[in-house]
Amino acid sequence: MKYCSQCSHPVSVRVPEGDNRERYVCDNCGSIHYQNPRIIAGCLPVHGDRVLLCKRAIEPRYGYWTLPAGFMENGESTETAALRETREEAQAEVVLRKLYTVTSILHVNQVQMIYLADLPEEKFGISEETLETRLFREDEIPWDELAFTTIGNALRYYFADRAKAEPSFPLRHLEIEPGYAELLLQT
Amino acid sequence: MKYCSQCSHPVSVRVPEGDNRERYVCDNCGSIHYQNPRIIAGCLPVHGDRVLLCKRAIEPRYGYWTLPAGFMENGESTETAALRETREEAQAEVVLRKLYTVTSILHVNQVQMIYLADLPEEKFGISEETLETRLFREDEIPWDELAFTTIGNALRYYFADRAKAEPSFPLRHLEIEPGYAELLLQT
Ligand SMILES: [Zn+2]
Ligand SMILES: [Zn+2]
Repeated sequence: MKYCSQCSHPVSVRVPEGDNRERYVCDNCGSIHYQNPRIIAGCLPVHGDRVLLCKRAIEPRYGYWTLPAGFMENGESTETAALRETREEAQAEVVLRKLYTVTSILHVNQVQMIYLADLPEEKFGISEETLETRLFREDEIPWDELAFTTIGNALRYYFADRAKAEPSFPLRHLEIEPGYAELLLQT
Repeated sequence: MKYCSQCSHPVSVRVPEGDNRERYVCDNCGSIHYQNPRIIAGCLPVHGDRVLLCKRAIEPRYGYWTLPAGFMENGESTETAALRETREEAQAEVVLRKLYTVTSILHVNQVQMIYLADLPEEKFGISEETLETRLFREDEIPWDELAFTTIGNALRYYFADRAKAEPSFPLRHLEIEPGYAELLLQT
């Protein structure tokens, strides 16, 4: 940020009165331009003993496999965002079951929220963001070709939870620190 | 948003190529200025049979009672943000127990995440944002003087969950639609 989006004056970086953090501040109109983390919402769609993955048609991680997920938009709930992303990226209509992973990805200022979801019908497709969409059994998951650490985490938790004598899917609360940049969800 | 924060050129509102939503777009430098929901993180601090509330020293809802909560900052996890807000607003050090409510507040583009937390010591205080901080038993909660719908929801769920024969505190996933504007968390 170089200029004030309200008045076009150059902004400066300083701690506003009553605050304790540096912000982009406009000394002309007084606007303070806060910057805050963004939410990535998505699904882990399950159909029988298989899960649905999408092969990315966009950078970063072009050609790698991921779960349908993307930035939550203004005016949406987190659930609506997860359903929309699944529709857009995988052409799939799912039923949300529960919030399953919440991951703070510190160095990119994102919070990723993945829902467990049922895919009732074997219907899905590709999109501008997706080269290929398909269902994988656990032994078919392309572990070395997953796009992001967070996706591998969600899948590992899912298969472990499902394998328990009495399957249960508790919320997983995770944090990813700087240093994993190359593996993380950035679009 | 009136001007591009990268080059100071006036922005226009249109659907960028490959997108399906209107965005603020700069026709000079090509920047697309996305706007996304923000996260409010906070705590429901419990000490024995009492919970900690703060009386707001700021608008909106000056003088009304709330849970310690505020905007998550860049570089934080959701947990770190909840702990920091509790420290800043209530001068209290708590131990997070679990994520308890996730509420999408559609018309203000916020997602509120409240953690159940233990307040080990009876130590807390006031701040620039808080006129008074105190512990309340269930029968003492000032239900008519709560700042926001979301705070009343979290407290009602908590006392109901605690009263169960076998207390358990499942994640509550909520959505608040337009029309409740006057009651909602906006700072
Ligand atoms: Zn300005
Ligand atoms: Zn520009």
